[in-house]
Order: sequence, then structure tokens, then C-alpha cells
Amino acid sequence: MIDITLPDGSVRQFESGATGYDVAASISEGLARNALAIRVNGEVRDLNRPIDDSANLEILTWNDTAGKATFWHSSAHLMAEALEALYPGVKLGIGPSIENGFYYDIDLGEGRTISTENFPEIEKKMLELAKNKSRYERRDVSKADAIAYFTEKGDEYKLDLLERLDDGTITFYQQGDFTDLCRGPHIPDTSPIKAVKLLNVAGAYWRGDEKNKQLTRIYGITFPKAKELTEYLEKLEEAKRRDHRKLGKELELFAFSEKVGAGLPLWLPKGTALRERLEQFLRKAQVKAGYLPVVTPHIGSKELYVTSGHYEKYGADSFQPIKTPNPGEEFFLKPMNCPHHCEIYKTKPRSYRDLPVRFAEFGTVYRYEQSGELHGLTRVRGFTQDDAHIFCRPDQVKEEFLKVIDIVLYVFKSLGFADYTAQISLRDPENKTKYIGSDENWARAEAAIQEAAAEKGLTTVTELGEAAFYGPKLDFMVRDALGRKWQLGTIQVDYNLPERFELEYVAPDNSRQRPVMLHRAPFGSLERFVAVLIEHCAGNFPLWLSPEQFAVLPISEKYQEYAQQVYDKLVQAEMRGSLDSRDEKIGRKIRDAEMSKVPYMLIVGEKEQENGIVSVRKHGEGDIGSVPLDAFIRSFQEQVEAMMAG
Amino acid sequence: MIDITLPDGSVRQFESGATGYDVAASISEGLARNALAIRVNGEVRDLNRPIDDSANLEILTWNDTAGKATFWHSSAHLMAEALEALYPGVKLGIGPSIENGFYYDIDLGEGRTISTENFPEIEKKMLELAKNKSRYERRDVSKADAIAYFTEKGDEYKLDLLERLDDGTITFYQQGDFTDLCRGPHIPDTSPIKAVKLLNVAGAYWRGDEKNKQLTRIYGITFPKAKELTEYLEKLEEAKRRDHRKLGKELELFAFSEKVGAGLPLWLPKGTALRERLEQFLRKAQVKAGYLPVVTPHIGSKELYVTSGHYEKYGADSFQPIKTPNPGEEFFLKPMNCPHHCEIYKTKPRSYRDLPVRFAEFGTVYRYEQSGELHGLTRVRGFTQDDAHIFCRPDQVKEEFLKVIDIVLYVFKSLGFADYTAQISLRDPENKTKYIGSDENWARAEAAIQEAAAEKGLTTVTELGEAAFYGPKLDFMVRDALGRKWQLGTIQVDYNLPERFELEYVAPDNSRQRPVMLHRAPFGSLERFVAVLIEHCAGNFPLWLSPEQFAVLPISEKYQEYAQQVYDKLVQAEMRGSLDSRDEKIGRKIRDAEMSKVPYMLIVGEKEQENGIVSVRKHGEGDIGSVPLDAFIRSFQEQVEAMMAG
Repeated sequence: MIDITLPDGSVRQFESGATGYDVAASISEGLARNALAIRVNGEVRDLNRPIDDSANLEILTWNDTAGKATFWHSSAHLMAEALEALYPGVKLGIGPSIENGFYYDIDLGEGRTISTENFPEIEKKMLELAKNKSRYERRDVSKADAIAYFTEKGDEYKLDLLERLDDGTITFYQQGDFTDLCRGPHIPDTSPIKAVKLLNVAGAYWRGDEKNKQLTRIYGITFPKAKELTEYLEKLEEAKRRDHRKLGKELELFAFSEKVGAGLPLWLPKGTALRERLEQFLRKAQVKAGYLPVVTPHIGSKELYVTSGHYEKYGADSFQPIKTPNPGEEFFLKPMNCPHHCEIYKTKPRSYRDLPVRFAEFGTVYRYEQSGELHGLTRVRGFTQDDAHIFCRPDQVKEEFLKVIDIVLYVFKSLGFADYTAQISLRDPENKTKYIGSDENWARAEAAIQEAAAEKGLTTVTELGEAAFYGPKLDFMVRDALGRKWQLGTIQVDYNLPERFELEYVAPDNSRQRPVMLHRAPFGSLERFVAVLIEHCAGNFPLWLSPEQFAVLPISEKYQEYAQQVYDKLVQAEMRGSLDSRDEKIGRKIRDAEMSKVPYMLIVGEKEQENGIVSVRKHGEGDIGSVPLDAFIRSFQEQVEAMMAG
Repeated sequence: MIDITLPDGSVRQFESGATGYDVAASISEGLARNALAIRVNGEVRDLNRPIDDSANLEILTWNDTAGKATFWHSSAHLMAEALEALYPGVKLGIGPSIENGFYYDIDLGEGRTISTENFPEIEKKMLELAKNKSRYERRDVSKADAIAYFTEKGDEYKLDLLERLDDGTITFYQQGDFTDLCRGPHIPDTSPIKAVKLLNVAGAYWRGDEKNKQLTRIYGITFPKAKELTEYLEKLEEAKRRDHRKLGKELELFAFSEKVGAGLPLWLPKGTALRERLEQFLRKAQVKAGYLPVVTPHIGSKELYVTSGHYEKYGADSFQPIKTPNPGEEFFLKPMNCPHHCEIYKTKPRSYRDLPVRFAEFGTVYRYEQSGELHGLTRVRGFTQDDAHIFCRPDQVKEEFLKVIDIVLYVFKSLGFADYTAQISLRDPENKTKYIGSDENWARAEAAIQEAAAEKGLTTVTELGEAAFYGPKLDFMVRDALGRKWQLGTIQVDYNLPERFELEYVAPDNSRQRPVMLHRAPFGSLERFVAVLIEHCAGNFPLWLSPEQFAVLPISEKYQEYAQQVYDKLVQAEMRGSLDSRDEKIGRKIRDAEMSKVPYMLIVGEKEQENGIVSVRKHGEGDIGSVPLDAFIRSFQEQVEAMMAG
């Protein structure tokens, strides 16, 4: 008999050789039905593989990440089976699961190609094969037998993989007529695969090496229920519609130019208005919270980065140094603002009474990324951090964390991010020597972060060993309207730079002490934040932030004068908008304003002019009635105030 | 008889061999008394040198730049005479006049030095010698005689100079016992030199070559009246007091750090507040005038600068290109914002109806300067231009000039620069081929600038041939409180970049046309402008701009609560300031606030608390009485509004 310990700590006894299915069945029929695989002492395995010794065991279903991964890996095998049926002689590379679905790299042989047009046929074949309820059978084989098998089959890619494998642990998996070299694990049989969608086809070099042959990579995704596939595809469509690169272009927010350079955004007037508005909003909140704005240059001399320790990390994959006519003189594009802020700290002596000091800068930094890794505003080569560095005494860390959390939550609230969690990264208690800073300070800072997070009622995950070598941190993870997770705000304790820059303050006993430094950025970077925001709100920005809050639309030229009066009054009330005085039909004007996602359209004609009113149309909602202009302004301002209330 | 034509065009007849003195005497006794030298057919000469032929002639006095230069050159000889008397055997290098005064490079010989302590003795000797009324006698000498003279005297420097001279034109000047190798001209005799001040002593290599011996350079200045010297020294002291580098440090506006790099200012919190305030002020005025703020990166690819034409001008004296891991890829720190703005113009098609478009950016640019040329904020390696580029049709140039002039004048008025002139730079009508752009467009733009300047009532100077090859321009010269001139605002027409970037708009006839581009910057750069402003107002910034507009000073801790109420109310009224709650005597608090040049100090004690009033002290003026807090706020706001009224 063996002891099986379940995640809740309960222990059940089974005969040696029992399977995960047996364990699941002993818990409930439903669980047995939904079980896809098991995790035995941390290792994912086939549901039906016998368990010989006592172990910790977890039943994996579709609701577990590892369950999904197993499901998709098995789906890759199913696709391979279908491809062999449809394209006899096809050679197979590798076919793993990925974050959403799976792919398989294949070689169709000279003269044959696959395009999206062939997808329906393959999907059909996969579903047909899945209905066979073929079991995924695992078997151990010797290396010689394995080589013999694939030699006969003529699959050079599998042979290449085999060559690199040790002898002892080679396994094959077979379902139906299809056999693959595979470590597994797999789901018990093909029947749970109820919905199939092939998504994309692309080229991929064998073993990722461009000197090798280019194979055809087919991406797909599968689900246990047709409804789940439909939902997934809708979400995918929605994500495409919300893609910030697409909306950024349509709304004329930003652009890229080959001549300026890849990954270096040009902020167009409307995007600049949005960006300045975000900056202004945060600047105001920060000044209120005692931050001191500073401005520093975008380059720094080599000396600065030797001191900060960044110099030794500059490599061949970075922007290279900027030489000058002065031999030996070198500058670097600044990759972060902290060294500059340390130098500002040093411009005068500081006393314990002066702390904390908080230097804030919307500082543009430059970091080289390979052009293939660039992606709209989320992965760029130049970006502006909403950066600040707080220099404080060790006993002030908690108070400062509380204040920073307040600002981050204010940002989230004002911008409509309601779903977020916090990750606290602490040092590895087993391996304290790899961290800089005294035990006492670490203990104090880690307690401060945890207490601050608890006092603010944050939902937190704590990760041991995830702290940087120079200090613990708190990161905010935000879930957007499509359920995707983004890491946004961050607060980081730093014992390293104060040491390297020899920062000091005079303590009450006149001794010189090192301040603690906190790095923090509620947005992270303006570029990435704007990208996330665009996708989160699908370009329908919160009213206070909208680049164009209103559009005055006169029905015809006759009402141009009244329209101008309305426009002027709104501008005077510090609202942003436009007056569409084109000689176009009102329908066209409304359509264009809707396209630009203007929150409020104010239509003015004879009735409106006579009564000093405006007919209000709200974006995405349609007409919401006529009101006196003053009433509209009042209600508009109330809405904005409600959003901005700390 | 010869004809002497005077500057007013009048002609007088004299016998050949008459002197400038004769001419001056024929005009007025006063002029003869004040005459220092003459300009004959453009060449400055001794007043008493005979004139043999008919000529254009100008009498030069202390009021002429060339008159002053002659006076100071003669003073250098006088100083040399004094030095020979006091330091027998002294050897002499060169002794020219400079912008303010003169210097002489001397070699005192082994073991002898001169310091500022020796200055009074030398000055005394100079004044004593001046009273001798020694005439500056010119005589021609042969090279052989000249060499013989200085060989006997043992002056190797004069011999070195002589070696390099042609034979024909060697002249000596002698006054009293002192003879110098000199081209002249000089003033008639030493008697007008009534006031002497030696200013400085420094090292200077012979012939400016560091491989040569280092000589001692003594700087001095002289005047015809003692009062003028006193005034000059006062102005010098005042300029030192107002030096923006000194005030920038005292007021904690900016700092430099060796590690960040020379010429790269760090804007400290108070300086940043000032800078942001200036930006905000101009941004507001510009948005009102239809400008569209944009944001562009601080680097651009090589391609961008090949297109703009700047690439070919990059040399060994510039910041060198930034290489990347991608071979052949190169970026440059941007030296100007215009190429980026051209690329923004190109992000979409433009119609004649869309023009003008005006892109504005506070764009930080980087240009390498030798470290010896760096000077506080006026000569830096990184600076932020208040840049904008207007893309318009040729027929819109005048209207745009009028609007830009409005903004520039608004800036000058709001910042207290009342004394300015404008320089219009046109092309050389004799040499039209060296300019780009059509004759028609040039004629139109030049007329537009002149008409716009006239309509705005500007005092202008027009310079032919001073236009850039790519267009005419208008520069504003401002005179500061010390009478020094600074070039600040600039407006520049550009036909070149639209051509190089192939910018287009669709004309009414559907043809593609090139827009005209205007560059303009009312401040020039924020760094330089702040430097000029600091020196102009001696750190007492206009109230609206002042980093710290008020300081609330409670007499003791007892009134801390009321002081806080006062402070909060002022902050709520959007005023910037501080609350000095230190446990210090009120006298100390006032002294510190005066030092920081805070415009308004609000002193609160028992009387103020009881009556809800504040006792107001104005910087540099002292107590101006007690008023209710609300009345203070109202009067403060009225003052600011009056300054900001367009």
C-alpha cells in the first residue's frame, strides 16, 4: 500500500500501481471525468501512469495551467496525425504547447505548401480523429529501436533529435496510427478535444537556426467545449480591434518613422495631448504628496555609470557609447534616471530632518532592443518613465510605501483599472549572503512592505527569493478589460546605489548615515501605460483624459455663429474639443465624430440657437436629449470631478 | 589743396598735409579737444598724421568704438612705460586693446612676479607718466635698425615679431622714454588718460602656443574721466553679483556634476519649478495661438540626418554617432528638432485647407562644445529649445510672422524685457545664386517679414546678405538691466528642409506643392533664457514666475496653527510658497527669506491671528503694512494678471 497526499493535506491509501484516475475516482466521479493529468511530487505525468510509491499528488483539469498545457500538447499530436493522413510523407519537427494553444513545425517536402485555406480540412480531420477516442499510449523504447523506426519512416528531424538524446529515457507516444518521439505527458485519450481552430501559419528555421532549413509552423488551439472556442475567438477579435497599434493610428495618437528609427515613437498632437494630460495628472498628485520635480539630461558620462555599476553590464547588445572629440571621453544614453537623481541628492548636505526627499522626473530613457522584439508602444527603444526616487531614513520606509501605494491606487481608480493584485518580492531566507544591505534593514523593509500592503487592504502574493540583490519590492499586476494581466506600478527598495554613490545624511548624533532609496513608477512608462490604457478602454478614454472631449456640430452654415459661441464657452470652461464647420451633412459629421471616439457631440441648429441649448449625443449611446449649455457644462464637470476625487 | 569729405557728406578744403586735428578744429573747438584719432577712407590713423590727398574723413572720439580702442591701445603703451620704470629689464610681448580695456604680455625675468598687490603702484606710475603729456611719436624704421634697437635692448619677443615682418612698413611709436614696435594708431598724447585700473593678471603662452614660454598677461582699463571708471567698476561688481552661475547656486536653481558631465545641467527642484512655469506660460500662449504640441525622441537614425543634410556636417568636433548591435545601424543625438517635425508632417496627406500646421515641442537637443567654451547655462552641451515649426503656404508667411512676433513680444513683456530691437536678415541682392528657393518666394517672404515688422512697430536693422542660404530671418536683440545685448527670439524662413524631405500639400488645383517652413523660438533655449533672466532681474523674478512667491513666518510656535491656515489658503489660491516653522527667531526667518529673494514675507503673531490679518514684508522694500488675508490674495492676483495680460 502507498500513501497519496492531496493538496489539502489529506492522505489516502492505495495499492502500489494505482493511477491518477483511481485517485480522482476515489474523490468524485466528476473529477475523474474531468481529470487530464496529474502532478506527482511536482512532476506532471499521464493520468493513467501507475504510481509505485507514496507521493504528493494533484489532479490536473482544464482549470489548471498544466492541465491546459497537457491538453494542447496532445492536440499537437492530434494535428500531426491529421497532417499525416492528409499529407502522406510529411516530416515532423517539434510540436509543443504554448501560452495559448500549440504549434507543430512540419516539412511538407518539395512543391507542397499549406495556407490558411487548408485549415478547415485539417480541422475537420482532427475532429474526426478525436471522435475515435484513441488512447495516448506511452512506451519505453531503446535508442536503437527508435532510430530504426524513424529511419524507416524517413523523418530526418526526429533522427536529429534522437541523436542528441541520452540512451536511457526514450519514450514514444502513440494514438491511433500516429507515433511520436515524446517525453509526454498526455491526456488519456483524444475524446475531450471537442473544438479545434488553426490560427496561423509561419516559417520557422529547424532548431531556430537560420542556417538550417525553414519548416512550416502551424499554430492552433483546441478546447473541451465549442462554446469556449467561440468565446476565445471573440476575445481574439476584440483584442485585434483594440490593438493599440491599430487604434493609435486611427486616432492619430502616435506614429513611427523609418527615418527616425524603429522603436522610437513620434507623439502626434492628439497623443501628445493625452500624454501631457497624464503627466499633468500625476505631477499634480505627486506635488501634493511632497515630490520635487527635477530635470536631468538624457546622457551621462562613463564615470556616472562606472559609479552606479551599470557600466560593467553594458554589452554588445546595448546602445554603444557616444565618443567625443576629447579622447577617452565617453557618454551613454541614459538607460535609467536614478544615477542622475543620486547626483542631485549630493548637491548639498542633507540632515535627518530633511528626509525624506522625493525627486520626480518624467525622464526619457533609451535601451536597445532587437528590431524583431519591438512591438508598438509596449516594446520600444526610447520611453518616458514616470520616475521618482525617494531618499529616506530606514524608519521611514513603511510610511513612504503607504504614500506610494496611495498614489498608485489613485492612478488605477482615475483610469478605470478596478482589478489588480500586488506581488511582494522578498529575499531568499535560505541564501541571505547574495543580498546587499544589513540584515536589520532587510528585515525592517520587508516588514514595512508587508504591513503597508496589509494596511491598504491589497490582495497580495508573496514570492520568496524574487527580490533584487539590492532590495525587496512590490509590483502591481493589473487585469484589463479582456482579462489580460499587465505589470504596471512598481515600488523598489534599494540599498545598493546609496552605497555606490556614498550618499549620506547627518543623523541626530551627528554621525553620517546612508539613506534608503526607493524607486517607484505608478505608470511604469508612459508609452507602455498608454498602450495598455488604449487596449483596456478600446480608445474610449476616461472623459477627463480624452484628447477631444466634445465636438460641436452645426447642422448647417447658418448656425456657425452660434456653434462658435458654444465652442468658445466650452473652451473657456477648460474643456477640450473641436468645432466641425465643414460644409458636410450632419450625418457625416456625426459619423466622423463617432469614429474619433469623441465622448460628447453637441448638435446645434435652429431650435438650439433659439433656446440657447445643445442637443447632446454620447459616443456609443446616441442622443441623450437637449439641455441648456450651462447645464451640460455643469454635468460634464461633475463627472470629471467624481473621477478625479482622491 | 585737398577735399575732405565728412560723414554728413559736406566737403571742406585744406592744404595737402593738413592733419585730422586741423579738420576737427575747423568744425569746433570742442571736437578738436575730444578728438582721439581719425578714420581716413575707412582706415583708422593718428589724429596728427598729415593727410596728403583728398579723402573721406571721420573724427573719432571716446564715443566711437574705434576711438576707445585707440585710447586703450595707447594705454597699453603707457602701462609698458610704467612697467619698464618699475621693473627694469622687463621684456615685452604684445599689448593690444580688447573689448573692455587692454592687456600687455610681459616677461619679468627669472624670480620676479607681479600680483594684484603690485597693481596700485603700477597704476600710480601710469597716472604720473600720463600727466607728462608725452606725445605718441610715430616714426618709420628700417628692419635692420629695428632689429638693432631690440637686440641692444635684449627683447627676444619683439625680435621674434620683427623676424616675421616684411621690410617695408615697420614703424616705432615712442612716448616719453618708451619705444615700441607698433603699427599704431595712437592718441596724440598721454594727457587724456585720467583714470586707470588694472583688473587681472594671468598666464599666457607666447604666440598662444603652449610649447612656448608662459608670459604674464596684465589686464587693465582706462578712462578719460574718473567718474567713468567708478561707473564701470560698479557695473562690473553688479554683473558679478548677478552672475547666473553664482545666483543659480545660491538660489538652488541648477547644478553641474562632474560625473554626469560638464555642460549638462541638473535642474534642481526650485529651478525646475521656474523652468516648468516658463514652459507652461509659453505652452498656454502657443496653444491659444493654434500650435499643436508634439513629442519626439532625442535620437534619430543616420538616414534622418542624411535626408536633412546635417549628416555631411557632422565632424570630428561633434558628438560621435551611437552604434548598435546591428552592423551599419547608427543613431545621432539630435542637434535640432526640425527633421523629426518634418517626419510628423509626413505622417498624413495635407491639403491647402489644413495649413498652416504648427508643431511645438520643448525639445532637448545635444551639441558638443569644447569644455573650455562651456559657461554656466549660456553655453552648454544639452539644452531645451522652445521650438516650433510652422508649415504654411507661401501666401501665409506674413500672417504667421505677425502671429509669432505677437508671441515674442508677449514673452518680453511678461518677463520685463522692455528694451529690444529686431534684426532683419535678407539675402545679398548681388549674389542671388547661392540661395535655395524661387526668386518669387524670396521676394514674397522678405516683403512679408519687413511688412510684419513695420506693422508691429518694431525698431529694426536690416542686414543684406545675412540671410541663411535657405531663407531670410528676423532676430530679436534684447538689452538687459546692465545694458548688455543678448540675441533671444528668432524667426527663420526655410525653403530647404521642405525640399529635402519632399514635403507636400495638395493645392486647390490638385497639384502637389511644397509648404514653406518657419522655425521659431521666442526664448531660444530655456537654459540660455533662464541665465539671461537671472542676470537681468538679479534673481528677483517677476512675481508670477518666482519659484517661491511667499513665505509665511510665524513669530513663534504659538502661532503655528494660524500660520498653517494662512499657508493652506494661499496654496488653495494657487500661490507657491513655504511655511517656516523652524524654532528660530523671527529676525533669522526674515533674513533667510530675504536671502532667498522671496517676494512676499507674511509675518503672523498674536495681533494677526486675532484679526485674521497678515503683516506683509516685501523683498528689498521692507514692511508694507498689515492687511486682511483675502485682501492680500486679491492684490497679489491682480499684480500677476496685469503682468500676464496679452
